[in-house]
Amino acid sequence: MPVDVTLDDAAPDDYDAIVVPGGVINPGKMRRDKRCVDFVQHFFENRKPVAAICHGPQLLIETGLLKGRKMTSFPSIKTDIENAGATWYDTEIVVDNGLITSRSPKDLEAFNRKAIEEIKEGVHEHA
Amino acid sequence: MPVDVTLDDAAPDDYDAIVVPGGVINPGKMRRDKRCVDFVQHFFENRKPVAAICHGPQLLIETGLLKGRKMTSFPSIKTDIENAGATWYDTEIVVDNGLITSRSPKDLEAFNRKAIEEIKEGVHEHA
Repeated sequence: MPVDVTLDDAAPDDYDAIVVPGGVINPGKMRRDKRCVDFVQHFFENRKPVAAICHGPQLLIETGLLKGRKMTSFPSIKTDIENAGATWYDTEIVVDNGLITSRSPKDLEAFNRKAIEEIKEGVHEHA
Repeated sequence: MPVDVTLDDAAPDDYDAIVVPGGVINPGKMRRDKRCVDFVQHFFENRKPVAAICHGPQLLIETGLLKGRKMTSFPSIKTDIENAGATWYDTEIVVDNGLITSRSPKDLEAFNRKAIEEIKEGVHEHA
């Protein structure tokens, strides 16, 4: 993926929504970087859509804002999601008040469709 | 590593201690396998030494038995360890009543030394 803008040059206020990708290495790096955690936290706090797939929800755990949320993730981190206070569902897509999550690349079709829907709706609400 | 015995042929009663290796893929697979979780749980329940390094503690989370324990792990899963009820320390080795944990390959010397010490002590106690 070509990088449009680096984290240091990006301001969360300039964005209407965030999509957190998966992979087993990247989310582990992102969750250790306070700039990443603060960036995604902005979207939760401002009720903007947050979409995450696979291991992407590992970054969301770091915000401490998953308590009471409904979501899914790559199945291996199910217990970590539950221990963070969320309820975990074994389904291709979970949408909970602008939080859009999926389990793995095989859920991508549903994930992309719903993420786009929620982002359009979120932008509409903020317009 | 050559495999001596597979999980299906191994009985936890035959072992005095367990060492859970790290890596970012394997612990994710092991924690999803109830046979692995049950196997490691035996060592906790029978107060036999449990050593884990890097992402290995992800498997330990699945036992639900980390509450109140002192430990460390690869730093990226610190919050998951804490959400499981343990206290996390940023140090090369933590030993807590037969639970031996380290952060990463750079801690291997301390990890191996302490693991061997605790295992010898554990075997002595059970003899």
